[in-house]
Amino acid sequence: MNPLIDGLQYANWSERVFRQMREGGLDAVHVTITYHENFRETVLQIEKWNRFFERFPDLIFQGFSADDVAKARDTGRTAIFFGSQNPSMIEDDIGLVEVLHRLGLRFMQLTYNNQSLLATGCYEARDSGLTRMGREVVAEMNRVGMVVDMSHSGERSTLEAIEHSSRPIAITHANPHGWHPALRNKSETVMKALAESGGMLGFSVYPHHLKGGSACTIDEFCTMIARTAELIGIRHIGIGTDLCQDQPDSVVEWMRVGRWTRKIDYGEGSAAAPGFPPMPEWFNDNRDFAKIAEGLKSVGMSGAEIAAVMGGNWSDFFASSFGRA
Amino acid sequence: MNPLIDGLQYANWSERVFRQMREGGLDAVHVTITYHENFRETVLQIEKWNRFFERFPDLIFQGFSADDVAKARDTGRTAIFFGSQNPSMIEDDIGLVEVLHRLGLRFMQLTYNNQSLLATGCYEARDSGLTRMGREVVAEMNRVGMVVDMSHSGERSTLEAIEHSSRPIAITHANPHGWHPALRNKSETVMKALAESGGMLGFSVYPHHLKGGSACTIDEFCTMIARTAELIGIRHIGIGTDLCQDQPDSVVEWMRVGRWTRKIDYGEGSAAAPGFPPMPEWFNDNRDFAKIAEGLKSVGMSGAEIAAVMGGNWSDFFASSFGRA
Repeated sequence: MNPLIDGLQYANWSERVFRQMREGGLDAVHVTITYHENFRETVLQIEKWNRFFERFPDLIFQGFSADDVAKARDTGRTAIFFGSQNPSMIEDDIGLVEVLHRLGLRFMQLTYNNQSLLATGCYEARDSGLTRMGREVVAEMNRVGMVVDMSHSGERSTLEAIEHSSRPIAITHANPHGWHPALRNKSETVMKALAESGGMLGFSVYPHHLKGGSACTIDEFCTMIARTAELIGIRHIGIGTDLCQDQPDSVVEWMRVGRWTRKIDYGEGSAAAPGFPPMPEWFNDNRDFAKIAEGLKSVGMSGAEIAAVMGGNWSDFFASSFGRA
Repeated sequence: MNPLIDGLQYANWSERVFRQMREGGLDAVHVTITYHENFRETVLQIEKWNRFFERFPDLIFQGFSADDVAKARDTGRTAIFFGSQNPSMIEDDIGLVEVLHRLGLRFMQLTYNNQSLLATGCYEARDSGLTRMGREVVAEMNRVGMVVDMSHSGERSTLEAIEHSSRPIAITHANPHGWHPALRNKSETVMKALAESGGMLGFSVYPHHLKGGSACTIDEFCTMIARTAELIGIRHIGIGTDLCQDQPDSVVEWMRVGRWTRKIDYGEGSAAAPGFPPMPEWFNDNRDFAKIAEGLKSVGMSGAEIAAVMGGNWSDFFASSFGRA
């Protein structure tokens, strides 16, 4: 099979979104279930997902292992893999890594823009790299089978995570900084180190990560993917849309501000445009993955290369990442 | 195989205790991990157990399904199944039942001596039966595969739990009230209703539940078991020692008092004897199960009957109880 896998979404989940996943043929998706929530609040998010799994068993189920991608394909459903965009939910307790892995958490970002207990976010003025606890938590994530995700981390922290981690890590949703110099996009140095260690980069369609923003064309996006494949290898790239479908603007504010400031921080936005940016016309929801596959064909990729980018690589990465070391 | 299973222990866990489990040939044990702890505190107990599993992989592992009893036998280890003696850890949130089941919790008492949010404990003056939330939580436990344990509940609550539960329930550690009229021991009415619904009674060797207390003889204990088998059927009984090995007396105080009173409540003890009572001479630790099996033979039980009581019945009960409805 050629699985279709999205490396990151944070939609306002609903039956509508799940039905669109099925219409788009999505076999598996890494969903963000928490940002700044503490452990108990994160468990409430898991409880909410448990209700989704109970209500929509014909559309979705919780994924725990890479085998669940094939199971999803075989049963015509989408496997949902949990992840966190910040380590807030482990609080200051390394033991929660294993507990959350048992509950299905398969990805954890070491930072979300800011300094965390573990590493430095990409919006900080100075990046001091992995902290003492950060090194311990990465080792624990390696042990239990939770993927280190550095999408929102600073350059030094990311390089140190790649170096320190005994298993390949991921940048689930970001694009090359050379193509579009957003703080969230990644340098050639990072992308090459990531690929050399066996890691994965998921390309984002979130407009702030796109050259030209919402006006970026599918051809520009796919040309960027093809060039990145030439740079770091076809085996180390996938899609990580960062789709935030149907979310009210209050949610992007929570993502950016959490409880760390009493002021508004606009993150990648601005006072003039504080909300979610409009999506590019070629990607609005889960029914639009075929357009990316077509775009990759248009820029000259082979069928095997397209299959790798659209899900084959993520599937292989899941297989080597989610189990015990 | 004839598995050896203990229906309840709450020892001061250590390598010594785990080695004694292996010396005694114990294949599986239901261990209490929490009494009055809230959710977060219970997760800390799970983290503590995760460290035990990591440190002593040759002696123990966490049991999740009945298949783990055979796996324990095949690998020469003891499968540890988690349980709670009070519903404090689900707080007021029914969604935590499924979350804790995912983390391996397979038994939950609806009460521990006192009134809970779910039912009435056996030390209350009036037993009002299952509460509104209690009925909902029993249905949720039925759905996910968590055993309702009424060892410390009142008579009406226990009968209502048997009636309301769509799956057989357990009284993991108690003896017949007619044999020894402790508040914690169970009436014929309860034992018969339990057995008729397919449930299980585990016989306790905790001295306060024994006729004659610590002086109870193995012959008296086994005669009581044989008579109970005649009364409710050989298929509905097992062992649930309530072994509290190596625990300091501060722990029995926590069990009795929790945070519900500022005074000392002596429970089954007294001001003159507030601590753990001395064990009967024939059962001090996990190496002593053979003495119970020998005792059952002495009172005339057949090999097949002894095998059923010593673990076969619990094994069958686990197989029908721990999965989704």
